[in-house]
This record gives sequence, C-alpha cells and structure tokens, in this order.
Amino acid sequence: MFITFEGGEGAGKTTVLNRLAQRLTEEGYQVMTTREPGGIPIAESIRAIILDNNNTMMDARTEALLYAAARRQHLVEKVQPALAEGRIVLCDRFVDSSLAYQGAARGLGIEEVYQINQFAIADQMPDLTLFFDIQPEEGLARIQQNQEREQNRLDLESLSFHQQVYQAYQQLLSKFPKRIERIQANFGIIEVEAQAYKKIKARL
Amino acid sequence: MFITFEGGEGAGKTTVLNRLAQRLTEEGYQVMTTREPGGIPIAESIRAIILDNNNTMMDARTEALLYAAARRQHLVEKVQPALAEGRIVLCDRFVDSSLAYQGAARGLGIEEVYQINQFAIADQMPDLTLFFDIQPEEGLARIQQNQEREQNRLDLESLSFHQQVYQAYQQLLSKFPKRIERIQANFGIIEVEAQAYKKIKARL
Repeated sequence: MFITFEGGEGAGKTTVLNRLAQRLTEEGYQVMTTREPGGIPIAESIRAIILDNNNTMMDARTEALLYAAARRQHLVEKVQPALAEGRIVLCDRFVDSSLAYQGAARGLGIEEVYQINQFAIADQMPDLTLFFDIQPEEGLARIQQNQEREQNRLDLESLSFHQQVYQAYQQLLSKFPKRIERIQANFGIIEVEAQAYKKIKARL
Repeated sequence: MFITFEGGEGAGKTTVLNRLAQRLTEEGYQVMTTREPGGIPIAESIRAIILDNNNTMMDARTEALLYAAARRQHLVEKVQPALAEGRIVLCDRFVDSSLAYQGAARGLGIEEVYQINQFAIADQMPDLTLFFDIQPEEGLARIQQNQEREQNRLDLESLSFHQQVYQAYQQLLSKFPKRIERIQANFGIIEVEAQAYKKIKARL
C-alpha cells in the first residue's frame, strides 16, 4: 500500500504523516515513512545539483527532468523494496507535487510534466493520495506563525504562485478521482488526522 | 542550421564533423562544433553522476532522464545561442543516440525515450541529421585498429548490443525520412566526407 501526502505549504501534511505512521505502527502495521530524495545517494547527488545556488542558469525543463530522475531512483531503491516487504509506505510529496509546482505554477504544463513522470515511475502510481486542502492564504499564515519551521524556497514564493499550485491540485482531484482523496485541512490537527486515518483505514 | 551527426562506433562521424567544420569555415560560414555535455557546468555535473563508478545502483530510467536533463541544458546554454547568432551548429550525437542506445539497445522503448526527449528539446529538433551507416562488425573492427583512440564504455559492449543500435538507427531513418540523411560510411574518409558535404550544402 503506497500512500502519498500532497498539498500546499502549511497544510499540516508532514505532521499528520508522522502521527499516522506512529498510530498505524502501534496497531501492528509495518510502516515506512519517506520523502524524496530519501537518503538515496544518487537521488541526493541530483538534488544537490538542483539546489546549488551557483546553478543560476538552470532551465525549468532541466529541473523538471532532474526531479523526475531523483524520483525514479528513490522509488526503485527505497519505496519498491518496502512495498515488496509488505509495508505501508507513507511518502511526503510525490508525482502530484511536480504536476502542481512545475507543471502548473512554473508553467511547463501539467500534461507534459505528467508524461516525463510516467516514464520515471512506470506503473508505480500511489494506491492512495491524500490531498490536504487549505486555502493558500491560510496555509501561509500558519507557516509564518510557526517559529520552529525554517522557511524554504517554496514558502517564499508569491501568493499568486501558491494560488496556482492550489488550483492545480483541484484539477488533479478531477483528473484522478479514484486515487486522490480530499482532506479538509482547515481544522485543528486532531480533526485533520482523524479524516486522514479514516481514508487510509477504508483502503487497508 | 542545426546539424547532428549520428551512427554507431567507428563510423567516422567525429572525424568527418571536424573536417567539415574546417571546410565550411574556410568557405566563410560561421560554424560551431559541439558535443554533449559541451562544457556547460550543469550538464557536466549531471554527466559526472551518470559516469560515477560508485553509482552501481543507477536505474536505466534514471540514467535516461539524466541524459535528457543534460541535453536540455546544453541545448539552451550553448546550441540555441549559437543558432541565434546565425551559426551552423555541428553536434556530435543528439536525440537519436538516446533513442538508439537507451530506447532500443537498453530496452526502454524508442517511443518512451522519444517522449522524454521531446520534453527536453521542446521544438528544437535538428534541421538535418547525418546517419553514418556502417555494419557494426566493420565499425568495431576499425576502432580496434585505431591505436590512438581510447576505448569507451560503449565500445566495449557486446556485438549484439551494437547490432540493436544499428537496427534502431534503421528504424529512425524510416520514422524521420525528411530529417535524417544516410551517409554510406563504409568507404574511405575522403569519400565519406564528400557525401556529408554534399548533403549539407544541399540544405544551406
């Protein structure tokens, strides 16, 4: 069972992912949590090129292909072996993030980014994707209130960028109605976790 | 005018490319010769990951995506600016090499590798591609006789690998009859160069 967690910044998905991993483990499930590049040396090396501040000439398509390459390696070396062992894999962001951030917000086109990601993952789409739905304004306000969180590159993008990401996720919900389930993330963490837990248990 | 040189090992394409560059320059054309990764730092960094002997876990799809990423960056930073200046660009290997070597010989599928390369190059296909046609047995024999040439990873693949590459190029000739021109490469260098020169001049 391969489950991915998706959504904009400040939607609470990482917090909920970790809480659910603990809960499911206590119930006796074998769970692995991960996020790209996930400590896979090849994927880490690729990530280092993407994040290198000297690479100011990096083209958006080059970047999208590098993300897809790192995704492939993380999938093959870490996710698929865990699935083969019968584990539940909870992965913080996956294909849909590339579609929303690079396909939509960076303007490369959702369909085009989907095609290179299809090549990367072959037929290994998630069994279930939880989309943490929160208005971008609200998500960003949460982040700014969170003193412990270090702001990353994406947090610092403009509001209109995050609105494009949000709209793209809504499109993806329509495109993949069976795979993606909506979580109403504009509630407290206990309530959001309860929704996510229910969606997962319904599929186990 | 963007011209790519393609073919198996030992077909003489690199030698002919350099001779033609000199000849066209003497005729007054502005010519740039290049090959991937072409000294572009981002593309060189990507290439270093591909060639790193520690990366024994590298998946074939990861590798294909990395080649496409390096291609994109080389195209944007080096080829397209030269074309914009009105130069004739002679490029040693390009998209068709990925289709033949990774798509066909490595078994990823020509169509699938074509799609990720379409994403990489957008609409910048070569105006003309010269395919240096020589039987793999003959090409490999030439390499073994050439003392000055250092054998690379591809030279050392099995004959059946090189035969698959050769068959793939034949398919590509059928698929892109307007773009790809066949050069009979089983002659001496002067004769092969003369054929290539004629094909290029017909398009200038």
